[in-house]
Amino acid sequence: MTIPPCTESGSSVLDELKAALGSRVSTDGELLQNRAHDRSHHDWAPPLAVVEAASTADVSAALRICHEHHTPVVPRGSGTGLEGGANTTADSICLDVSAMNRVLTVAADDLYATVEAGVMKSALNAALPEHHLQFAAGPGVDATVGGMAATSASGTTAVHYGTMKENVLALTVVLADGSVITTGSTTKKTSAGYDLTHLFVGSEGTLGVITEATLTLHPIPASTKMGVWSCPSLQHAVELVVKALRSSLRLTRVELLDRVTVDALARYTGYTAPVTETLMVEFVGDRTEVESQYARFAGLAAQFEAAEHASTSDPAESSRLWQARHDALPAALALVPGSAPLPTDVCVPISRLPACILATQKDIAASGLVAPIVGHVGDGNFHVAILLPPGDERAREQAEELNARLVERALAAGGTCTGEHGVGLGKVSAMAMEHATALQTMRTIKASLDPRGILNPGKVLAAS
Amino acid sequence: MTIPPCTESGSSVLDELKAALGSRVSTDGELLQNRAHDRSHHDWAPPLAVVEAASTADVSAALRICHEHHTPVVPRGSGTGLEGGANTTADSICLDVSAMNRVLTVAADDLYATVEAGVMKSALNAALPEHHLQFAAGPGVDATVGGMAATSASGTTAVHYGTMKENVLALTVVLADGSVITTGSTTKKTSAGYDLTHLFVGSEGTLGVITEATLTLHPIPASTKMGVWSCPSLQHAVELVVKALRSSLRLTRVELLDRVTVDALARYTGYTAPVTETLMVEFVGDRTEVESQYARFAGLAAQFEAAEHASTSDPAESSRLWQARHDALPAALALVPGSAPLPTDVCVPISRLPACILATQKDIAASGLVAPIVGHVGDGNFHVAILLPPGDERAREQAEELNARLVERALAAGGTCTGEHGVGLGKVSAMAMEHATALQTMRTIKASLDPRGILNPGKVLAAS
Repeated sequence: MTIPPCTESGSSVLDELKAALGSRVSTDGELLQNRAHDRSHHDWAPPLAVVEAASTADVSAALRICHEHHTPVVPRGSGTGLEGGANTTADSICLDVSAMNRVLTVAADDLYATVEAGVMKSALNAALPEHHLQFAAGPGVDATVGGMAATSASGTTAVHYGTMKENVLALTVVLADGSVITTGSTTKKTSAGYDLTHLFVGSEGTLGVITEATLTLHPIPASTKMGVWSCPSLQHAVELVVKALRSSLRLTRVELLDRVTVDALARYTGYTAPVTETLMVEFVGDRTEVESQYARFAGLAAQFEAAEHASTSDPAESSRLWQARHDALPAALALVPGSAPLPTDVCVPISRLPACILATQKDIAASGLVAPIVGHVGDGNFHVAILLPPGDERAREQAEELNARLVERALAAGGTCTGEHGVGLGKVSAMAMEHATALQTMRTIKASLDPRGILNPGKVLAAS
Repeated sequence: MTIPPCTESGSSVLDELKAALGSRVSTDGELLQNRAHDRSHHDWAPPLAVVEAASTADVSAALRICHEHHTPVVPRGSGTGLEGGANTTADSICLDVSAMNRVLTVAADDLYATVEAGVMKSALNAALPEHHLQFAAGPGVDATVGGMAATSASGTTAVHYGTMKENVLALTVVLADGSVITTGSTTKKTSAGYDLTHLFVGSEGTLGVITEATLTLHPIPASTKMGVWSCPSLQHAVELVVKALRSSLRLTRVELLDRVTVDALARYTGYTAPVTETLMVEFVGDRTEVESQYARFAGLAAQFEAAEHASTSDPAESSRLWQARHDALPAALALVPGSAPLPTDVCVPISRLPACILATQKDIAASGLVAPIVGHVGDGNFHVAILLPPGDERAREQAEELNARLVERALAAGGTCTGEHGVGLGKVSAMAMEHATALQTMRTIKASLDPRGILNPGKVLAAS
C-alpha cells in the first residue's frame, strides 16, 4: 500500500474519514457515549467519532487518514475489557471492528479457523459443532476474537488449553500507517523469522489493529467429569492442585473459591457446600480415561483431607454445578447492596499462591472492605472482587491502595500484575515495576511501529 | 547499564575485548576454524576472534565493545544448527555461550527451571529425574538451550509438548549495545505488555543474545506405549493421523518414515518391518489411560488398513524400536557411500501433507537423486535428506533446486519454509516469498533494536 506524503491537508480528519467511509463514520452523541469505554471504572471521554469498520480495507483507510492527521485511534471489539484498554479520549477516533463478524474458514482436518476480528467467541463456537470441534481458549465472558487476542485473554480453561498466546496461529494486522500485514502461518509450527503474531497478541491495539485471526481448534471431548471439593484450608487446596499437576493429571479446569465467596453463594443462591476453601475441578476425554483421571484425583484429594461435595458426568448437572462459579461475582455484589466491583488480576508461581492469597486476605480484613477471591489456581492467577459501596469515595481509594499493594506483593513473589485482563490504563503504572529495563525495549518497538504514537496512546505504556 | 558515547577509540576491537575479557578471548587458528560454522553446508570464514563468555556480564561487555566498533557478532551454542545460523564471517566475532552451563533454579512445584544459555538439553534433563520432571521440547540432537530457543527448535515431541515457543517462559537477553533485559515471567501466564520473550525466541541472535532461559518442565510419565504401524499408502498414513488427532488421541510422538527410508533401514540395520510407509506412534501417561489410548488408536488404524508391526510398553524394547527413527539418517547416508545430506524442513497444514510429499517424491524421482523422507506428521513437518555424492557439484545444484521447488510447493499449500531448523543463511531468500509485507515489519524491528546491524548480520533477513 502506498502511503501519501505526510502533508497537512486542508480538510479535517472527520471530513476525510466521512469521504472515505461514508455512513460507517458516526458522530451520533449516544453512540459516542456508548463506545467510549469498557466495563472498567477507568476514565474516558466521548471520542470525535466512531468508525464502524466492515473490512480490513476500512480499517486500513481509517488508519491511513488518522495517521496523516496525527489523530489517536482506539480500537474496540465488544467492550468487555476490565482495564480501560478500549476507553477513548476526546481527541480520538473509536475504531470499532465488531461488525467484522464473518467466520472465513473452518479447516477441520487442520484444526484451525480463520475469522474476522469482530467474531464473538460464542459465534465461532456455534459454527463448530458440525465439525465436532471447539474454540476452547478465552475468558468466561463472551468477547470478540480480536479483543481476546489483543489482551492475551484467558480464563478457566487456560490450565489445559492455554491462553490466546497458545491459540493464535496467524493474524492480519493493519499498522499505524494503514499498511496491511499477515503474520504467522496456518501450519502448527514455523521457525521462519520473527514471531510477529505473538508481538501483536497482548499488545492491546498499541502496535497495530488486528482484523483477522487464525485460531487453533480442539476436538469436542466425548465425556466430562467435574467435581466440587471442600478443602480444610487454602494451603491444602493449593498443595492438592500442585500434586495433581505434578502427577500428570490433565485438569481442564481447576477453580478455587475462597470461603467468603462460598458464603456469598450460600446467601445468594442457596448453594449448599460447606463454607470453606473449595475447588471445582473438571476432566474431559474418553469416558474410561476421564473416570481414571478423576479416581486418581480423588486419591490425591484424600491425602490433602479434601472432601467431595458433589460430582457428575451428566452435562446438565455439570452446568448446574459450574453455575456456582459463574454466580460468584453477582453473589459477591449482593453482599454489599448496590456495590460495583474493582477487579484485580495478579498471577504468581503456584507455589507462592497460598502466601500471596493469605497476605491479601489479611490486608482485606484490615481494610474493612468486603472482597471475595476466586482463582484459576492451576495457573497461579486469582481475582479479588473488591466491592465498592455506591458513592463511597473513601472505599474506592482504599480499594485502589489494596490493589496496588497486591500488585507489589505479586511482583515480589516473582509474579505479574496481570494474568489475563491486560494492562489497559489500570496497570500502566505497574509496568515499570514489573519490567525494569525491558520497558525501554517495549518503548523502542512501539516507537518503531507507531512513530506518531496514534495507536491507543497511553495504554500499556504511559504516554511519553 | 550506561553505554559510553559512540566515539572512535584509538584501540582495536580485539585489544578492547582482550582488555575486558582476558583469556576468554582467543585468536587461536584451530579454534577459529572450529567455531566458524554449524553442521550445514553453508558458507563460512574464520572470525576475528572467539569470545568464550562465562556470564551475562561477559556477553554484555563483548557486545558493548563490538557495538562501539561496529563489529559483527555471531552468537553460538553447540553448533548443531542446520542452516548456517552460527556461521561466521571474516570480519566478525564468534560469541560462544557454551561455557555458560549452569542450571540456576529448578522450581519443581512451579514446573519450571532457569538455566544459562549454554546448558545442553541432556544436562538439564540429567538434573531433573530427582524431581520426577523432564524438559520435553527441542530436537532429537542434543543442543544448548540458548540455541534451541534462538531457532524456535522442536522435534518428535512437539505434537504433544509443543516447540520452544510453548516451552520458554522468560529470558535474559543482552541487546546490541550491551544492555541487559529480562523478558516474560516465571508465572504460567501474563498479559503485562509486549511478549518480548516470543520476539527473541526464533530470532536467531539477530535481535539480542539469549544468556538465560526459564523453561517449562513436565512430569515424567508413569508409563509409555509405542507401536510401529505399516500403512498401505502415504494417504492412508496421514488420514489415520488426522483422524487420531481429531479424536482427542494424545499422541506424544507420531513419526512417518517413507518407504525409501524403511528400505534403507532394512539394508543398514536389518530392520524387518514391511517396506512401506510406516508410522511410529507413542502414548504416555498412567498405564490404564495409555492402554486405552493405544487401543483406540489401533481401532482407528484398522479403519485405514494399517497393520501393527510391533508394539511395547517395555522401556528397553521401546528404545530399541525408536532406534530405527534415530538410524534413519545414517541408514539413508549408507545408500550412497560417502554422501552428505542436504536437509530440508518445510511444514504444511496436515491436510496438505500427502499431496506435498507425493509431488516431492515425484520431483525426487525425476531428478535421479536419492532422498528419503521422514516426517513429524502430526505437525505437518517433514524432512527430505537429499543425499549428495562426494564431490558431485551437479548433484548439489540439483539438490538445491529440489529444495527451492519444495519450499515453493509448501508455501503454495499455505506452509512455511522452515518448521524447526530456522532461517539462518539457507532460507533467507525464501523469507520474502513467505512473508510479503510483514518482512518490512521484521526489518523495522531489527533496525530499532540493532541500529548498527552488528547482531548476526545476513541471518534471517538479507543484509540490507
